[in-house]
Amino acid sequence: MKTLAALLVQTGQPLELVEIEIPALKPGQVLVEIAYSGACGTQVMEARGLKGEDKWVPHCLGHEGTGTVLEAGSAVTKVKAGDKVVLSWIKGSGIEAGGAIYMWGDKKVNAGGVTTFQRHAVVSENRLTLVPESLPMDVAVLLGCAAPTGMGAVYNVLKLQPGDSIAIFGTGGIGLNACLAAALGGASPVIGIDPSPTRRALAKTYGATHVIDPTGVDVIAEIKKIVPQGVDVAVEASGIPAVMDQAINATRQQGGRAVVIGNAKYGAELKLNPGVFNQGKSLMGTWGGDSVPDRDYGRYGRLLGGGRFPVKGLLSAPYSLAQASQALDDLADGKVGRPLIDMSL
Amino acid sequence: MKTLAALLVQTGQPLELVEIEIPALKPGQVLVEIAYSGACGTQVMEARGLKGEDKWVPHCLGHEGTGTVLEAGSAVTKVKAGDKVVLSWIKGSGIEAGGAIYMWGDKKVNAGGVTTFQRHAVVSENRLTLVPESLPMDVAVLLGCAAPTGMGAVYNVLKLQPGDSIAIFGTGGIGLNACLAAALGGASPVIGIDPSPTRRALAKTYGATHVIDPTGVDVIAEIKKIVPQGVDVAVEASGIPAVMDQAINATRQQGGRAVVIGNAKYGAELKLNPGVFNQGKSLMGTWGGDSVPDRDYGRYGRLLGGGRFPVKGLLSAPYSLAQASQALDDLADGKVGRPLIDMSL
Ligand SMILES: [Zn+2]
Ligand SMILES: [Zn+2]
Repeated sequence: MKTLAALLVQTGQPLELVEIEIPALKPGQVLVEIAYSGACGTQVMEARGLKGEDKWVPHCLGHEGTGTVLEAGSAVTKVKAGDKVVLSWIKGSGIEAGGAIYMWGDKKVNAGGVTTFQRHAVVSENRLTLVPESLPMDVAVLLGCAAPTGMGAVYNVLKLQPGDSIAIFGTGGIGLNACLAAALGGASPVIGIDPSPTRRALAKTYGATHVIDPTGVDVIAEIKKIVPQGVDVAVEASGIPAVMDQAINATRQQGGRAVVIGNAKYGAELKLNPGVFNQGKSLMGTWGGDSVPDRDYGRYGRLLGGGRFPVKGLLSAPYSLAQASQALDDLADGKVGRPLIDMSL
Repeated sequence: MKTLAALLVQTGQPLELVEIEIPALKPGQVLVEIAYSGACGTQVMEARGLKGEDKWVPHCLGHEGTGTVLEAGSAVTKVKAGDKVVLSWIKGSGIEAGGAIYMWGDKKVNAGGVTTFQRHAVVSENRLTLVPESLPMDVAVLLGCAAPTGMGAVYNVLKLQPGDSIAIFGTGGIGLNACLAAALGGASPVIGIDPSPTRRALAKTYGATHVIDPTGVDVIAEIKKIVPQGVDVAVEASGIPAVMDQAINATRQQGGRAVVIGNAKYGAELKLNPGVFNQGKSLMGTWGGDSVPDRDYGRYGRLLGGGRFPVKGLLSAPYSLAQASQALDDLADGKVGRPLIDMSL
């Protein structure tokens, strides 16, 4: 069986929409018909070669999506044909079956345990979770990466308490999910910082009580006009080292903590005054918001589907698979928060 | 009433042992006859002017000690004359009464809410805690700074679990307390790293299962020979930025965390690969090991006094108050783990 995929053939070049041959399923693998894929900074960095040398090209892309199981390989027990599933890069229960090798004519195409920029994909059982009941497929796609990373950073890593003040640096897809999580968790104030007016407007829609345009201003001073002692917690969602420095410095002494969820470019260097640690501030890292799919995705789904915020708007007007490169460019340019790729277009 | 004090008169110069006049107690202040004082890196940095400009000279020094209450000022309810007390820089319950101004001839001498390099001191109520029952005064002195910082970093900040692997960078006073806390908390292995053979030997005595001399070796590689995936947690007790970088890099991916308890020099710069945060590692700061004296000092006292380790050896053979400068030099040179100043000498 063949399918269409938007492949990375050479870093720095647009993705190529080509037909690839789907291999037979290995034990623990599942064939999924993709309904929607999201896109995030990771794919931008991969496509532009910002993660260092890419020895896997040509390869499939994408790590958050939703779809329907067409066929479950042997030994798979978590899902069966017909199930609606979330595809996520974060490992949950089930078999780690490794990536698939597709054929593009006579060329091999690499793929990880989960990829989503394609109509059909071979996915490891442990990257699949059932779509929470009553959550639309075009919203559930956020459960693949943006929601577990952004919400998990706030709840699992920062361990936000109701009433905590929070600053969120970068209100793209992941930052907006952090914003939403903060608002739903009772944070106040919720300060969104982003140079893009589109993203600041989105932040306001998704729970920010204040927004700051960091262009040409002293961001820390602006934050301290709102919270004089510094915020209790901060989220760094830009991946820019200078912003990581701002994030930890924006927090209060004795217990302030900032979490980095932005992807740093390969070779980037972060310079910090180590005295911030003696002030009792922490700079935390996380792998997928410390989220455990089997434990957390139902909870995140209830929060997304709770109706207090119009979460569908967290995702852009949909792109077709042929427009996948455009989606990545628009994301990189700050034109959209989180691009949605609709495989039916 | 007059008393003897080892004053910092000019940064970079030896302390001066002089007689100072004790002022009348203000509400919330307590007059304590000091029995023992410890000394730590903070005093070394103050005496050498490594914390930046010192606008308080001449001033008293020292922030951990034990003694006996001679007189409690008005409004004090926590202690009374005759009580054996721990003097600690970490604020607990009680009145924050500000520092005392002593007179040295016709010169004013500044002092913070607690100072200990002197025979008698005026101390704020909130820096005093009763000595835990049955703990000798010359061991309880550790409760002023080294134990709450080192043990608190391990228990309160890193939240060590039994069986966690740990690396401790710098096994001076605070690092040794972290080492002891790790061993008593069931950590394994406990890896102590220090260029000083004296301190490595101390680490072995106080719970380290392995020690590493970092001189001229790749420390991360040496640690990974013991724990191939990297340690679960690490303690940075040297204050050196390059060692902070080693500490976070020595931890495992997805949840590894390092805590900085070493004092960074004023103006120091820490350079990090921000990708460590995307690997799910965290670099945590703390203010006194997040210790709460009223909650924690009894517990730390039971651990110190439990008898499994010969804790008296955590402190050096005692110095007299006249030898306070020597104590700081020996500490800076790595000749001793934690200098003890005995006021009866
Ligand atoms: Zn992602
Ligand atoms: Zn100290």
